Amino acid sequence: MPAPIVVINPNSTQSVTDGMSEAVDSFRRPGGPAIECVTMEGGPPGVETQMDAESVVLPICDYVHGRNDDASAFVIGCYSDPGLHAAREVARVPVFGIAESAMATALTRGDRFGVISILPGSVPRHLRQVRAMGIEARLAGDLPVGFGVTELGGEDEVYERMEETGRRLRDECGADVVILGCTGMAHFRRPLEAALGLPVIEPTRAAVALALGVVTA
Amino acid sequence: MPAPIVVINPNSTQSVTDGMSEAVDSFRRPGGPAIECVTMEGGPPGVETQMDAESVVLPICDYVHGRNDDASAFVIGCYSDPGLHAAREVARVPVFGIAESAMATALTRGDRFGVISILPGSVPRHLRQVRAMGIEARLAGDLPVGFGVTELGGEDEVYERMEETGRRLRDECGADVVILGCTGMAHFRRPLEAALGLPVIEPTRAAVALALGVVTA
Amino acid sequence: MPAPIVVINPNSTQSVTDGMSEAVDSFRRPGGPAIECVTMEGGPPGVETQMDAESVVLPICDYVHGRNDDASAFVIGCYSDPGLHAAREVARVPVFGIAESAMATALTRGDRFGVISILPGSVPRHLRQVRAMGIEARLAGDLPVGFGVTELGGEDEVYERMEETGRRLRDECGADVVILGCTGMAHFRRPLEAALGLPVIEPTRAAVALALGVVTA
Amino acid sequence: MPAPIVVINPNSTQSVTDGMSEAVDSFRRPGGPAIECVTMEGGPPGVETQMDAESVVLPICDYVHGRNDDASAFVIGCYSDPGLHAAREVARVPVFGIAESAMATALTRGDRFGVISILPGSVPRHLRQVRAMGIEARLAGDLPVGFGVTELGGEDEVYERMEETGRRLRDECGADVVILGCTGMAHFRRPLEAALGLPVIEPTRAAVALALGVVTA
Amino acid sequence: MPAPIVVINPNSTQSVTDGMSEAVDSFRRPGGPAIECVTMEGGPPGVETQMDAESVVLPICDYVHGRNDDASAFVIGCYSDPGLHAAREVARVPVFGIAESAMATALTRGDRFGVISILPGSVPRHLRQVRAMGIEARLAGDLPVGFGVTELGGEDEVYERMEETGRRLRDECGADVVILGCTGMAHFRRPLEAALGLPVIEPTRAAVALALGVVTA
Amino acid sequence: MPAPIVVINPNSTQSVTDGMSEAVDSFRRPGGPAIECVTMEGGPPGVETQMDAESVVLPICDYVHGRNDDASAFVIGCYSDPGLHAAREVARVPVFGIAESAMATALTRGDRFGVISILPGSVPRHLRQVRAMGIEARLAGDLPVGFGVTELGGEDEVYERMEETGRRLRDECGADVVILGCTGMAHFRRPLEAALGLPVIEPTRAAVALALGVVTA
Repeated sequence: MPAPIVVINPNSTQSVTDGMSEAVDSFRRPGGPAIECVTMEGGPPGVETQMDAESVVLPICDYVHGRNDDASAFVIGCYSDPGLHAAREVARVPVFGIAESAMATALTRGDRFGVISILPGSVPRHLRQVRAMGIEARLAGDLPVGFGVTELGGEDEVYERMEETGRRLRDECGADVVILGCTGMAHFRRPLEAALGLPVIEPTRAAVALALGVVTA
Repeated sequence: MPAPIVVINPNSTQSVTDGMSEAVDSFRRPGGPAIECVTMEGGPPGVETQMDAESVVLPICDYVHGRNDDASAFVIGCYSDPGLHAAREVARVPVFGIAESAMATALTRGDRFGVISILPGSVPRHLRQVRAMGIEARLAGDLPVGFGVTELGGEDEVYERMEETGRRLRDECGADVVILGCTGMAHFRRPLEAALGLPVIEPTRAAVALALGVVTA
Repeated sequence: MPAPIVVINPNSTQSVTDGMSEAVDSFRRPGGPAIECVTMEGGPPGVETQMDAESVVLPICDYVHGRNDDASAFVIGCYSDPGLHAAREVARVPVFGIAESAMATALTRGDRFGVISILPGSVPRHLRQVRAMGIEARLAGDLPVGFGVTELGGEDEVYERMEETGRRLRDECGADVVILGCTGMAHFRRPLEAALGLPVIEPTRAAVALALGVVTA
Repeated sequence: MPAPIVVINPNSTQSVTDGMSEAVDSFRRPGGPAIECVTMEGGPPGVETQMDAESVVLPICDYVHGRNDDASAFVIGCYSDPGLHAAREVARVPVFGIAESAMATALTRGDRFGVISILPGSVPRHLRQVRAMGIEARLAGDLPVGFGVTELGGEDEVYERMEETGRRLRDECGADVVILGCTGMAHFRRPLEAALGLPVIEPTRAAVALALGVVTA
Repeated sequence: MPAPIVVINPNSTQSVTDGMSEAVDSFRRPGGPAIECVTMEGGPPGVETQMDAESVVLPICDYVHGRNDDASAFVIGCYSDPGLHAAREVARVPVFGIAESAMATALTRGDRFGVISILPGSVPRHLRQVRAMGIEARLAGDLPVGFGVTELGGEDEVYERMEETGRRLRDECGADVVILGCTGMAHFRRPLEAALGLPVIEPTRAAVALALGVVTA
Repeated sequence: MPAPIVVINPNSTQSVTDGMSEAVDSFRRPGGPAIECVTMEGGPPGVETQMDAESVVLPICDYVHGRNDDASAFVIGCYSDPGLHAAREVARVPVFGIAESAMATALTRGDRFGVISILPGSVPRHLRQVRAMGIEARLAGDLPVGFGVTELGGEDEVYERMEETGRRLRDECGADVVILGCTGMAHFRRPLEAALGLPVIEPTRAAVALALGVVTA
């Protein structure tokens, strides 16, 4: 049996880790690899700024280094993909970033993807990654909902804003597939998919699916 | 239990279908969806020309239409992705093209991907799809081995040419991940990966992994 | 005297063929090649969906194959350019797609082109071709009028929508040249050009002009 | 009968003008517009440097201004397209640059075009225009033959170099269509096309064909 | 002591030259090169059209040629960068265009830049240069204020329009750095920077800073 | 008098800092800002891997935070631009990365730039930044010399390799401007410029020149 796929939540908010674990639960199968979701306890409550993102890179890499003998793949569970390329250097197994994975997956589900972000400050960081991936021709738009990571639980108001943002991505920006730009949004996938009539990609699920594609040899 | 993931080999060569089925066998799990590989009996022995590709579009779409109630996802198992967008129109479930899936997956495994193609005539067709996907900044090169689909079984000479082509993609073109540009090359994945020291992506596996990511809800 | 330039209308609507023939009538010259417009009788009334486009590919290629000795160039007369690359494989003479020709021509008439499409479903298909051509930096926008191919005759309401769409392409999207995204719109070229004050490109004319450039040796 | 299409050779070498006129002779038809080729007498013997290109801009624009009532279209007959956008401002009829026209036409004849230039110093100027046109994804390569404009007549040695350069564009750069990057190369079109087995685009012909497409209303 | 950096204002409006000289005054340092701003007396009052731009190319090149022994760098002080590449051919020292310099600088001050232009007719010219520079992925937008070069002095109304245009670039187009698209706007830099809360790049300053980077050896 | 421009060498090799300080010495002027070069004592001897780059991010940001009241601009003196976007978040003054600055500057000195890197492992990191900057159309090539940061002092052998690499970038890749891809190469700028006959950009100088352009208000 393969070693676990280890999903690292770099923020310290356990409820976010729990939401991620629930989001990927259907990928757990008898005979398949465990999918273990871990919380970086020293991390910020949510990765919202570039500094937040940088602050978790070395802890992630340390963790990856320490788990090298007991993982068949790593997933960095934050839509900023902090430390993705460093972790790839340290790891002896494949490492997936959830943003990179979500965007790669989106290319197979529609013509132009929209991203629902948390805060306006995330957008330029996302755009840099979109360009670094060389796929800007496929980006319809990236719009923030204006809530921080730890505010995403309060369903009603947040969900309304999510749906409204999804509609703008679809109707004004031309998106035909939507990415949830934060792990804290995982529980909105199904209602949003129903409301928008478009595929909605939950990034941790996208990364775990790609990881399973490598691990399941 | 979900309906099967149906992988359609649009060429009529059963041994190619068998190779595809073997390539994705590890994805079959208790409790998971069946992964069924079907041969389009009226198809050409191999899809090598644009006409070959066009000739299988309507049969694929007819098949998809007829299987709509008994499939959770379709995979078009030919590196030309024939009829991908038409099949998406006809299908009520997601449809994956193996070339699109392989290239999307490659974006998560390296910086620039190389493609090992069968014949020189395939290259412009691939380049059009690379540009249509908007990812040409990530293409290192696309080099043909000079064998047709049905000639890919004869291991020694073909494998040598595959390895030599892989080395050129790595050393001259700068590829750090390699895609097998024909379903008939599936059995070369492991030795090639070992010889090149690079991830080698088998497209049918890439598509089935992405399909499982959607189906496994 | 050269063999005819053969313009193939892949839909079965004779009035559309007649409109195309009229649109290119001024290119017919004493001593020049005949310009023959033919209707694919088994085709759909209009090519509106991806399936419609795929359904006409083999008939087009069969026709091309059969006319190889009696044509100096072929024009595929549908803005989806169905079967363009396959027909090029089959033909012994140059083959022009009207969408490709119209867009290439637009690059010489303005800085950014807008496309007036028939239905919303056409847009992603057009965008794929724009990217496959590698010219997305020149696309201002692609907006549908919301009428099907066979509804384009009813002048008043349709023309008003065409003009309104052209104005949006010009004023909101920044287009300084406009392409008619369906052969059924040919009769709107002159009034639209007058109303918008911009060059309006009728795709069949664009393709025939390019064909004459090769044939007139 | 429409006013003439006026082709302006901005260099002062009459034999180049004569070659251009011969190249477009087959486009002259009874009832069609005259195609008049004029030499800018004060121009340099050949446009080889950026300064040469700049030196002919105002004379071209003056000439265009003076011919506005007696031209149905203008063609700027130099592969640097000197003054193209200024002439468009001055002219009341369409203006075509032969480089822009040749590249637009090449998009309809192959997947990636190669350019045979005169001197190494022309290449960055051409690359700027390719990027300004937004079509760099379609450029296979641009290689100089190392002869100046007025040296292109001496058939044997020049032609050999042309053919060798064409072969490199085809075999090393992947071009499947070739553009003659100087009006002085017009007489090499047919032999080169035969030798390379690829379409060879003569830019003045390309521009006149596009002009006829507009003029022939 | 190095020879002067020579800033050439190609228009004949001395007050514009004076504004440029004032804008770069802080770069003048004891022991550093003189920064000399010269007016091309025969030029148009302002460069507004493509013809205006072309009309100043040869005078600029003549001037550059004549000053080759008495300049350590040249700056072409017009946002159309007229004659930039020709002047580089003529000059024995580096030549900077202020538009090219401003855009290069903007890449280091924000993620996407907006340009405040004078007249609508400038926009396509700017877009061609943005594409020729290969940086269109970084352009947020280019919006005209609707005043000509010589109308930019009348502070109140003009400034209001500048600020409003800057806000649209920031809020609607997503610009996080703004370029003043005309030398006549230099005196608006500081108030605009304060009002928008974004870096505002004055192009002559950008070019002189880059020139100092080379000259200060 | 403005506060100093603070150049941060994130590696712990004082001789590299000294070389940087010497490289920018000519920018120090009476009345101008001090240009202070500091060594991050806890850093690695040289930044060669992605992990090296990540390891210096927080120390850089801490340093920047602590110097906010005593700096008019910061320069991150490592060609990987570690922590550039985080430092911008922390700093109250502009922050320049030397790679970003060098590439922006290169856009004003030639048509396509080549980069001389230290080790093969640096190349994909550079390519990601080139794409993130959106300027890949201007990159001629990025070739490693095969020496680590601390090996760059040994002049003869290293210089020979530098020159040979520069020639390949010029002759095989088409570069007409060359960037030194490591701060430890600063002392090779002049001889390389003489040997290649091309502008050679030393990145720390490029960044300081851009910083002076903002600071010198």
